[in-house]
Amino acid sequence: MRVGVLGTGEVGAALGAGFVRLGHEVRMGAREPRNQRAAEWARRTGPCASLRTFAEAGAWRGLAVTATLGVWVEPAPSMAGPGRFVGKTVIDATNPLVSVGGGPPTLAFGASDSGGERVQRLLSGAYVVKAFNTTPSLHMFRPELPSGPPEMLLCGNFPESKRVVGEILEQFGWRPLDVGGIECSRYLETLALLRILCVQKTGRLDLVFRLASI
Amino acid sequence: MRVGVLGTGEVGAALGAGFVRLGHEVRMGAREPRNQRAAEWARRTGPCASLRTFAEAGAWRGLAVTATLGVWVEPAPSMAGPGRFVGKTVIDATNPLVSVGGGPPTLAFGASDSGGERVQRLLSGAYVVKAFNTTPSLHMFRPELPSGPPEMLLCGNFPESKRVVGEILEQFGWRPLDVGGIECSRYLETLALLRILCVQKTGRLDLVFRLASI
Repeated sequence: MRVGVLGTGEVGAALGAGFVRLGHEVRMGAREPRNQRAAEWARRTGPCASLRTFAEAGAWRGLAVTATLGVWVEPAPSMAGPGRFVGKTVIDATNPLVSVGGGPPTLAFGASDSGGERVQRLLSGAYVVKAFNTTPSLHMFRPELPSGPPEMLLCGNFPESKRVVGEILEQFGWRPLDVGGIECSRYLETLALLRILCVQKTGRLDLVFRLASI
Repeated sequence: MRVGVLGTGEVGAALGAGFVRLGHEVRMGAREPRNQRAAEWARRTGPCASLRTFAEAGAWRGLAVTATLGVWVEPAPSMAGPGRFVGKTVIDATNPLVSVGGGPPTLAFGASDSGGERVQRLLSGAYVVKAFNTTPSLHMFRPELPSGPPEMLLCGNFPESKRVVGEILEQFGWRPLDVGGIECSRYLETLALLRILCVQKTGRLDLVFRLASI
């Protein structure tokens, strides 16, 4: 499978490397194709990984992933050209958080909208599935837990795309749990924000929310 | 300590019984003082438990707890008389969820407000602390987990009241984790909603979100 990953940060690097390890070809899309850190990622990740522009990554047939900083979840596919995503499944892994004046982070798009919904509106011909946004990038690929594969929440409006993403999640070492339509992105992005608040309050960087039987 | 619990449902019964087991006196406040189920709760819970009206429960010096159905989080203390809560710590354990036309539950007050904020605005002379809303009533008192006491998220605007509620949470068998001001109720109520969605999707009634090191 060919996977275009928009975004060169930790999330893009972790997801891109995960797809390569599963045998897929990955184009990482950058705003600036001379991005040094992303070029280094491509070298390190091997011949199935390459660094391109947003447009070249978006142009590839196959799967697309938005993995930019949250506030770039619209500009990145806009620069790539929304038409390039028509008919494609798009995994949105972003978290649109902002911190105003050094205060605690909040949701950049308010609480009555979400990054997942915005990218679905922008890419109206694509099938957006929100996933991977509730876990730290360090543990996106095959987290090893004594209790077995943890649940990964996902949501979106298109059952077939959610099924495809569910299979990808299983290959990444997760148990997919579909919580509803793309509007549930609000809840998934809030969960990510709450995780970050808990990390900041405790200083425990490895904290995550896990669904478990009490 | 004297504890007035507004609400006669599972949450009120669980919290009220927990306070009695810790040696406190509990007045459970009901809309209808002839509420049969609540009278049965008081009999079963012993001499330190009694059934009263909202006003009588709210009138008691000490701690107050709102444990009604979420949409009653304002009417119950309104009926009790907001003046009765001035200078008191109020634990808000409610979740304002609604289900429209048999669809999945959503947040009754939208995503830009919350039950915690609304009860704090209504009881402007009280010190509201949101807590206990993210866990099922069955496990509010001393959940026994092999990994030790789980985290309970709380929030509110008043550090001294959060300290008092943190001590109560420890006596109830939890590790308190203060995530911020009362506006963080939005996140805590969203977490409760997301838990319910996951329970509905999986059929696993005992699912909870636990903060854990991955």
